[in-house]
Amino acid sequence: MTDEIGIVTPEKLHVSTPLEMVSGSTLPEYDLAYETYGSLNADKSNAILICHALSGNHHVAGQYEGDSTRGWWDGYIGPGKPIDTNRFFVVCSNNLGGCHGSTGPASINPLTGKVYGPDFPIVTCKDWVHSQNTLRQHLEIEAWAAVIGGSMGGMQVLQWAIDFPDQIRHAIVIASAPKLSAQNIAFNEVARRAIMTDPDFHDGRFIEAGTTPKRGLALARMLGHLTYLSDDMMGSKFGRELREGKLNYNFDVEFQVESYLRYQGEKFATKQNFDANTYLLMTKALDYFDPAADFDDDLSKALSAATAKFLIISFTTDWRFSPERSHEIVKALLDNDADISYAEVNSQHGHDAFLLPNDHYEGVFRAYMNRIHVELNPPLLQEGE
Amino acid sequence: MTDEIGIVTPEKLHVSTPLEMVSGSTLPEYDLAYETYGSLNADKSNAILICHALSGNHHVAGQYEGDSTRGWWDGYIGPGKPIDTNRFFVVCSNNLGGCHGSTGPASINPLTGKVYGPDFPIVTCKDWVHSQNTLRQHLEIEAWAAVIGGSMGGMQVLQWAIDFPDQIRHAIVIASAPKLSAQNIAFNEVARRAIMTDPDFHDGRFIEAGTTPKRGLALARMLGHLTYLSDDMMGSKFGRELREGKLNYNFDVEFQVESYLRYQGEKFATKQNFDANTYLLMTKALDYFDPAADFDDDLSKALSAATAKFLIISFTTDWRFSPERSHEIVKALLDNDADISYAEVNSQHGHDAFLLPNDHYEGVFRAYMNRIHVELNPPLLQEGE
Repeated sequence: MTDEIGIVTPEKLHVSTPLEMVSGSTLPEYDLAYETYGSLNADKSNAILICHALSGNHHVAGQYEGDSTRGWWDGYIGPGKPIDTNRFFVVCSNNLGGCHGSTGPASINPLTGKVYGPDFPIVTCKDWVHSQNTLRQHLEIEAWAAVIGGSMGGMQVLQWAIDFPDQIRHAIVIASAPKLSAQNIAFNEVARRAIMTDPDFHDGRFIEAGTTPKRGLALARMLGHLTYLSDDMMGSKFGRELREGKLNYNFDVEFQVESYLRYQGEKFATKQNFDANTYLLMTKALDYFDPAADFDDDLSKALSAATAKFLIISFTTDWRFSPERSHEIVKALLDNDADISYAEVNSQHGHDAFLLPNDHYEGVFRAYMNRIHVELNPPLLQEGE
Repeated sequence: MTDEIGIVTPEKLHVSTPLEMVSGSTLPEYDLAYETYGSLNADKSNAILICHALSGNHHVAGQYEGDSTRGWWDGYIGPGKPIDTNRFFVVCSNNLGGCHGSTGPASINPLTGKVYGPDFPIVTCKDWVHSQNTLRQHLEIEAWAAVIGGSMGGMQVLQWAIDFPDQIRHAIVIASAPKLSAQNIAFNEVARRAIMTDPDFHDGRFIEAGTTPKRGLALARMLGHLTYLSDDMMGSKFGRELREGKLNYNFDVEFQVESYLRYQGEKFATKQNFDANTYLLMTKALDYFDPAADFDDDLSKALSAATAKFLIISFTTDWRFSPERSHEIVKALLDNDADISYAEVNSQHGHDAFLLPNDHYEGVFRAYMNRIHVELNPPLLQEGE
């Protein structure tokens, strides 16, 4: 028995029922790329849905044939890991509008026979959750044992709890927020302007133009990274360390932190070849997420329909979605007398902490997943009891 | 008597003595544009030097003929204001490498007859202070009654105290830091990449190419603004207010904060026509500032030569240069038993607070300036005392 998931193969669901979207647009048909790990039990009660964040995708764990890269949450999913694939059947799909297999801006629009590009409709968290619900039906799962996500993934978890209370038993919301702050929106807007003002963007028709807005994408990614890392963590990782051990007094890289950021930007824009229109759509979905908006800006009201049990986790040095943002969710849930656990985890890793090893985080996560497992498999009563 | 400075006219000092720079380069000759307000007293003891920040210039107070725009610190400088021009002779010069009259990348290189552009040497805080010292000699001022600056201006104040202890009586360092953190450098690097990867940058020779890297400059400015404002302040100013009162689900501006940032970026890059090479140079000077580096990374040692009296001011919500960064300066000064005052001012305005009205800030500032005035003009002893 190994404690790692081995080779995995993505699957694809084609949905020919049109999706009516929040924006008022209709997607006539679409594909959802997804992966699964572990086995669905006989009564189909052990299924877990993972929701991914901005630049993530459905490749959460394991590795592809001939590729040593492991999934983005491999540390937390696998045999014996907090999300134990010996116990749970784990599902993750690439968000609609993505660029890793699900229908998105780089896909062909069946109505025109051309690449969607900028014509791909604005997607929202609600649209994602509704398409994920179609996947749930396809898999013949009555209700998820848990829906789990970090950051933008956590927003989808909240939306699941609100829109499909009977299809979600537990909601695990990590390093997330009930809506973006003005500062969060502002960072997204700078990233979008970087992409949209890149001359290679061609108003979003860069695929037809045979180009990629690499410069804009790299800038957007650099800026994103900045907000994922804490000041403390950057300080301890890079400090003012010089790349060549001495100052050169020119515009080449002087400090290690510059080198790191440039590398991350370049990698994202070239090697990973992330679709620029997808990046734009994901940041817009973040901006739009605000479940309280339909309930007089009252998050407690918005969550009043939820019946799931909740685990909320935040990280002390996360300044993108600080613990205070998780407190807002916790308070709204307490207003509804929900079954809730909350952990504020000490970490120096900022927003990125939700992806990284941390004993406290792992302990809380594991304990909660054990609870779910025990609920699904209640211990047999001993004779005499 | 008015409490406002009226029409002012900038002056220019031409320096034909070459400037040996920290980078190893030599500037064969240069101009310094500057302004003065108030009158120099008979013993030339009431002169105050103001040092400007990243995008600032020598136009600190008053207004130019035919232009209603007032100087960037007009609220704090003038008759009866904290820096009282009825008492003090106030001087501010445009930093070398600037784009508002002092020699910079948009100036003609006398050795080639062409625009400097990217060939303008890297300037450092030390170089600025040394050129400002030449201005001091030109004005025949033995010692400044005070050198005052906020943000990057505060760094120049520290450098003055270290390099010319006998020429500075008081050092007022506002919303500053003894060196940039890795995160600070990272923000600068993203701004620089935005400018340098703009195709209109032409490797810095955009003036010869007849272009301006407006897109990059606008992005750099948007990003700068983000770091000048606190999350709290953006929240109370913009919240999630919609520009058109409803969501449109497209890539036009949806939220007021987006509109504000785009406007700031555009204005900077077009109307203000800030020179892109100057922006790059200023951010590099910030990165390089680290007076402790020559003293075994010991700021206390670096400041041991200083004899000035100090006023240090920080603002509670400033996350660009947080109060903790001012504490570092205060501690190093205390190690040297310096004469020091420190105020941590409650403000919701983030880094920008140093430019804005605030009763506590103004009170502390005014009291300290009164102290300087009294030191220069000791009250006559009454008969019998």
